[in-house]
Amino acid sequence: MAASAQPATENMDAERQAPRRGESWWKIHLFRGMINDVRRRAPHYLSDWIDAWDYRVVPATIYMYFANILPALAFSLDMFQNTGTEYGVNEVLLASVLGAVVFSLFSAQPLVIVGVTGPITVFNYTVYDIMNPTGVNYIGFMCWIGIWALILHWILAITNSCNWLRWVTRFPCDIFGFYVAFIYLQKGVQVLERLGSSSSFYLSIVVALLVFMCAYICGIIGGSFLFKHWIRVFIKDYGTPLTLIFFTGFVHIGRMRGVDLEVLPTSTSFMPTNDNRNWLVKFWELSVGDIFLALPFAVLLTVLFWFDHNVSSLIAQGSEFPLRKPAGFHWDLFLLGLTTGVAGILGLPRPSTPTLCVTKPVKELNEKGEDKGGYTFEATHVVEQRVSNLAQGLLTLGTMSGPLLVVLHLIPQGVLAGLFFVMGIQALAGNGITDKLLFLCRDQHLTPSNHPLKAIKRRSAIWIFVGIEIVGFAATFAITQTVAAVGFPVFIFALIPIRALLLPKILSQDELGVLDAPTASPFTMEGIGGSWGGRESEETTEVEEENEGIMAGASGEGAHGATTTGTVLGDNIEKRSVGSTRAG
Amino acid sequence: MAASAQPATENMDAERQAPRRGESWWKIHLFRGMINDVRRRAPHYLSDWIDAWDYRVVPATIYMYFANILPALAFSLDMFQNTGTEYGVNEVLLASVLGAVVFSLFSAQPLVIVGVTGPITVFNYTVYDIMNPTGVNYIGFMCWIGIWALILHWILAITNSCNWLRWVTRFPCDIFGFYVAFIYLQKGVQVLERLGSSSSFYLSIVVALLVFMCAYICGIIGGSFLFKHWIRVFIKDYGTPLTLIFFTGFVHIGRMRGVDLEVLPTSTSFMPTNDNRNWLVKFWELSVGDIFLALPFAVLLTVLFWFDHNVSSLIAQGSEFPLRKPAGFHWDLFLLGLTTGVAGILGLPRPSTPTLCVTKPVKELNEKGEDKGGYTFEATHVVEQRVSNLAQGLLTLGTMSGPLLVVLHLIPQGVLAGLFFVMGIQALAGNGITDKLLFLCRDQHLTPSNHPLKAIKRRSAIWIFVGIEIVGFAATFAITQTVAAVGFPVFIFALIPIRALLLPKILSQDELGVLDAPTASPFTMEGIGGSWGGRESEETTEVEEENEGIMAGASGEGAHGATTTGTVLGDNIEKRSVGSTRAG
Repeated sequence: MAASAQPATENMDAERQAPRRGESWWKIHLFRGMINDVRRRAPHYLSDWIDAWDYRVVPATIYMYFANILPALAFSLDMFQNTGTEYGVNEVLLASVLGAVVFSLFSAQPLVIVGVTGPITVFNYTVYDIMNPTGVNYIGFMCWIGIWALILHWILAITNSCNWLRWVTRFPCDIFGFYVAFIYLQKGVQVLERLGSSSSFYLSIVVALLVFMCAYICGIIGGSFLFKHWIRVFIKDYGTPLTLIFFTGFVHIGRMRGVDLEVLPTSTSFMPTNDNRNWLVKFWELSVGDIFLALPFAVLLTVLFWFDHNVSSLIAQGSEFPLRKPAGFHWDLFLLGLTTGVAGILGLPRPSTPTLCVTKPVKELNEKGEDKGGYTFEATHVVEQRVSNLAQGLLTLGTMSGPLLVVLHLIPQGVLAGLFFVMGIQALAGNGITDKLLFLCRDQHLTPSNHPLKAIKRRSAIWIFVGIEIVGFAATFAITQTVAAVGFPVFIFALIPIRALLLPKILSQDELGVLDAPTASPFTMEGIGGSWGGRESEETTEVEEENEGIMAGASGEGAHGATTTGTVLGDNIEKRSVGSTRAG
Repeated sequence: MAASAQPATENMDAERQAPRRGESWWKIHLFRGMINDVRRRAPHYLSDWIDAWDYRVVPATIYMYFANILPALAFSLDMFQNTGTEYGVNEVLLASVLGAVVFSLFSAQPLVIVGVTGPITVFNYTVYDIMNPTGVNYIGFMCWIGIWALILHWILAITNSCNWLRWVTRFPCDIFGFYVAFIYLQKGVQVLERLGSSSSFYLSIVVALLVFMCAYICGIIGGSFLFKHWIRVFIKDYGTPLTLIFFTGFVHIGRMRGVDLEVLPTSTSFMPTNDNRNWLVKFWELSVGDIFLALPFAVLLTVLFWFDHNVSSLIAQGSEFPLRKPAGFHWDLFLLGLTTGVAGILGLPRPSTPTLCVTKPVKELNEKGEDKGGYTFEATHVVEQRVSNLAQGLLTLGTMSGPLLVVLHLIPQGVLAGLFFVMGIQALAGNGITDKLLFLCRDQHLTPSNHPLKAIKRRSAIWIFVGIEIVGFAATFAITQTVAAVGFPVFIFALIPIRALLLPKILSQDELGVLDAPTASPFTMEGIGGSWGGRESEETTEVEEENEGIMAGASGEGAHGATTTGTVLGDNIEKRSVGSTRAG
């Protein structure tokens, strides 16, 4: 357990948050989660700035800048084409800046980068598809969705809704990740699809394929035995941006110069893409009917953000990163509401997640201590600070200036399509569904007997679990292809009760224990009352009976007696070993 | 040693061939090599047909058919474009048929497939570049090169020249292989380069990249843990032909239908590509001057074939294949001379090598016998017979018929360019120079201590060795780009004395022993008097002193006393373990 690493303050908080027996679940302690978050995190605020005095912050900032801006550019192209040019590069960049500044200065999880992602892109242009025929002012309507969403986020933050996060296991996360990966791949195809049938179309495909291949090879080299550690890390971290820069120039070589390639559309620096509006959206000009019509959309957006933001934060603070400063989900949800509202008022799309972690290669020694030639990455120390997030936000702001916008305007759309392919395949490669599918496809004679999934005796159990995951993904992906796409957050959200109520009836405790797992480390889950194994009794007393199996399943051990002991810290939760997933 | 597996007849031959001490090297026993080859091999002739009653011969035939015809098609396109349409698909196919029929019926090494390869393509079109300005009849001139080459091959066969093969270690083979790989890659680029700058050009690049990616992924799956063994083997063996077929159809889907793609040019079935000639070349119409001008070219061709054919045969019968029937290099060189002459008279390009081997996955067990999850391929049994070679030749003949020629005419040039890329990367991946370069690039902290090259204490020794290899490759590749390309066989051939005379002065015995090795197993080398370690004294007595170091190096052990014991079979030669290079 991570408890040993915690300062005394957390243990005090834990006591304060400890359940009082017999208390009913409907007594909601308003603001309790947020206040606890601030209390826990505030003592670290100064150190968040002082700790940044570390040489690793500089490369981390540059890495985060690219990791954030590249997808943003790809999504800006997608939104520009799908929202009648209402959203463009400037909106997406400014949204990233807004998220970076607010979260770096005020959030409880300053390592979490907030930016424009795939799902929000889908949401935005489906709203456009639905509302455009009605003749409503799209940006004004989106603004009201933002304002309503702000209210809903704040209600959820005040009512400690993030405590429900403990129900979110890897199951819905993997499905969501799988869904997002396919959205990326589809976006890449769509970007290319629009380019007609001339030389420009085919050259764009060539460039997209080459970008994909180069970035993929960089990833492979990054995880290989080749070159010294720092060269490898450099190639892994900067391979994709350098590939993108290279191919932006590449298309001007030789006979390719003669092809008139479609590039990333940009507009006047620091100004909205649509010349007919100011940054401040005239939201007061909307009719009352339209304002209330925005509410159901805001509910969907809130469901999406509650899931997407929290889950991304959880994963980013997964058990593989040895974080020592506490998390604060309630407070951050409040902040997310704020940025959502502000983004709405400024007519921006809205903001999700990498994190800063330093790894070193550690030789893998077998039992005799002999060198097997393998190695694993071990996160030795995470520099938990606010500077890199703020700095990358300011860099993004700088990217909005004239000269840099000219550079962005050189990027061929084919390069961005390739970037979508890279993002899609990377997301697939790291996904739990992919891992399980690969296991099922393996030659059983060549599967090592110590493979974790071999602990499951019933092979059909894995098929059932993966089958349900794929059906969940397929349903979500299918709805995204229709005008009802805006409802996809409901599908994702419905996976949580499916996991909690349906799966235990089909699969046994032990099977679920191997197939599924808590999303983040016990230490991170603490801020939301621990994970299933060591949960607060408050929310779970009523549903205890039918869920006992899953709880145990999720924690990997029997959870009997957890509700009566009232332990907040999940001492009986097995620490998940995820180091192996990062092994070469 | 393989000696235990040999029937008694071989041992008798060995005695017959055993060196007589004091005999001078210049006493050439004409025909001795050929006669011994026939004596050794003849007793197996009947079993070569009877042993073919094995279900594995069917898939092997199909595999060999595709493995032979696909490169042939790619080279036919290259020659068609570079020899003023004198050589086309029909010539290349008929050359393959000729090689297959002659070698399957009469050769001492019936598993060796003879076909048109990259180096002969380079040779052919350089001759065209040189001779075309003189106005000579190209096909007639090539015919005379063939006739001269026949005479030269026969002289070499009669004078037991293949005994010199023992001097051919992996060093020149790796350089030659590296050179051929780059020729493939360059051919792929050249095929694409000729396609102008329209949609057709860019679509062809797309198709080439996709063919490469698909075939590469098939190769990866073939060597992975995925799927059952037979599925994996199927994907590995037929992935490339199926990819080629798929993409031939793929370019007719959707908007690609509108692009007028360049395809493989074909002509009337069973007829020469050039309508103005018959299969029989009118070689008597050439002037005497031109006939003698063909002689120096024939010398170069003979040098190339002597090296290419013999080395390919050696590698195909490498120590990883447990062959039990003896080889016969002298006899096969004689046959090669015959096919070269006949091909010349018929106006065909000339014929080189895969082999038939069945592998099964074997679990890799560590010292405790625990399952490590790794596995290696182990060649269990090679079906040594003549049927598969003959059958694939007849299949190739069938491909020359009208209907199938129409199908070949559908293959886009982009697909063939992709095929060149696949062949090039596959050749590079299996090359010794690539292996050593990868070793040098490895993070030394992550290199297992039992890596073979770690046995060399002086790291610079590896650099020197690889450096010389790369210089050798670069010089050969560079000359290929000039009109002097026709002289490249001399460069390759010069590597043998460089290895024998120069390298031992720079590198120590032990270092060379690790860096270099004999090309084939001791059992195969026996037909040419054994390899360095256990060689006949005949040719080597005079040069013994200065070469002792290399000899030892090549065999991996000290060779002291080998000349005095007169052992034909290299009992003191370490059996090379190459199984590891085929591990997943």
